[in-house]
Amino acid sequence: MVIGKVVGTVVASQKEAELVGLKFLAVQPLDLATGEVKDGGVIAVDAVGAGVGEIVLYASGSSARQTTVTQNRPVDATIMAIVDTFEVGGEVRYRK
Amino acid sequence: MVIGKVVGTVVASQKEAELVGLKFLAVQPLDLATGEVKDGGVIAVDAVGAGVGEIVLYASGSSARQTTVTQNRPVDATIMAIVDTFEVGGEVRYRK
Amino acid sequence: MVIGKVVGTVVASQKEAELVGLKFLAVQPLDLATGEVKDGGVIAVDAVGAGVGEIVLYASGSSARQTTVTQNRPVDATIMAIVDTFEVGGEVRYRK
Amino acid sequence: MVIGKVVGTVVASQKEAELVGLKFLAVQPLDLATGEVKDGGVIAVDAVGAGVGEIVLYASGSSARQTTVTQNRPVDATIMAIVDTFEVGGEVRYRK
Amino acid sequence: MVIGKVVGTVVASQKEAELVGLKFLAVQPLDLATGEVKDGGVIAVDAVGAGVGEIVLYASGSSARQTTVTQNRPVDATIMAIVDTFEVGGEVRYRK
Repeated sequence: MVIGKVVGTVVASQKEAELVGLKFLAVQPLDLATGEVKDGGVIAVDAVGAGVGEIVLYASGSSARQTTVTQNRPVDATIMAIVDTFEVGGEVRYRK
Repeated sequence: MVIGKVVGTVVASQKEAELVGLKFLAVQPLDLATGEVKDGGVIAVDAVGAGVGEIVLYASGSSARQTTVTQNRPVDATIMAIVDTFEVGGEVRYRK
Repeated sequence: MVIGKVVGTVVASQKEAELVGLKFLAVQPLDLATGEVKDGGVIAVDAVGAGVGEIVLYASGSSARQTTVTQNRPVDATIMAIVDTFEVGGEVRYRK
Repeated sequence: MVIGKVVGTVVASQKEAELVGLKFLAVQPLDLATGEVKDGGVIAVDAVGAGVGEIVLYASGSSARQTTVTQNRPVDATIMAIVDTFEVGGEVRYRK
Repeated sequence: MVIGKVVGTVVASQKEAELVGLKFLAVQPLDLATGEVKDGGVIAVDAVGAGVGEIVLYASGSSARQTTVTQNRPVDATIMAIVDTFEVGGEVRYRK
């Protein structure tokens, strides 16, 4: 999985029928060494009620379809956890 | 998924039989922080009637085959939504 | 999919039994913005009779196994189309 | 697989039901040439009792779900081995 | 697939039960344009009796599990061919 920050939203009315009702969030990855947001990121489907500003974990590829919300849908990135604490090298990089 | 801009087209007459009838579009990703087109990108199959110049979402890998148009076909990138609005940090990066 | 140029060949006699009879081609990707060959690339199995010098599309991952030639084989990149025309921004980047 | 060092931990109480009981570890990859930790990395589920500071192998994508711990779960990176010895060019880069 | 050079070995005694008996090799990719070893690479399972110093092809992702040796195992990179000849632009980059 990737740990990242929810930075935005995407709205799309013209889409595959199986995507109706899904929430699309823009997520930028955190650098593991510094805990800061870095370049890159994806548009992920929310499976856990995440919102803008939260630190989350998302899964990619076929693993992104292993949730009730995303099963058999053309979705390749899914937020499946909201992070409480992220520690690296014994230091807290993030606490909710 | 990746948010990107449809920048071009690919025509290929000599191809796998299962690809007949599919529309191939060149898509370049948007930088999530700036909303600008950046390097990279893919040739994606269109599943939603997208055209050159539009901002879209595409799914990659096995997830790209979870649409009626692409099922069981040798396709690893599929446009499955046309974006209406893309917001980052409370600012509108794109509105159709 | 990735659009690329077939730049070379690989011959391997000692290999998994399911790979016997497959043709391995080296493919370098084209930059979508300029149409020029860029760094990177893969060794792909040919499913459409492609040859060195041609511009092709290849699919990666599990999608690369969705052809008659590659089904159930340990193959993660397959050339499944030979490109006739590639246009970006209304300009022809390549014509066969 | 990727060889990497476990550098941290992630705790997430709000998550997909299938993730309950899994341990999330931050892993940074080793450079194969130098054996040093390099940029990048993932949050991986632990399937072998790994801890912070250890050198491990993790598998990504659908392969990450081929363990008893991770089967059918929305997990795309799993630590499935703890490294004893890592040698490159006849030199020991790491010994437990 | 990726063409690469086997540069090292990994030994891991504490691991998923399904990994017992597999041989782990460190492989660095070759630059397609120059034929030289470049940065990056993976730890791959050997399915063809490859050894350090040899030039090989490896498959990644679910395709890495399509061999007798790796089926249903948490393995995401498998060496499935030993290269005899690698040619780019009509020049031999490597001959065994």
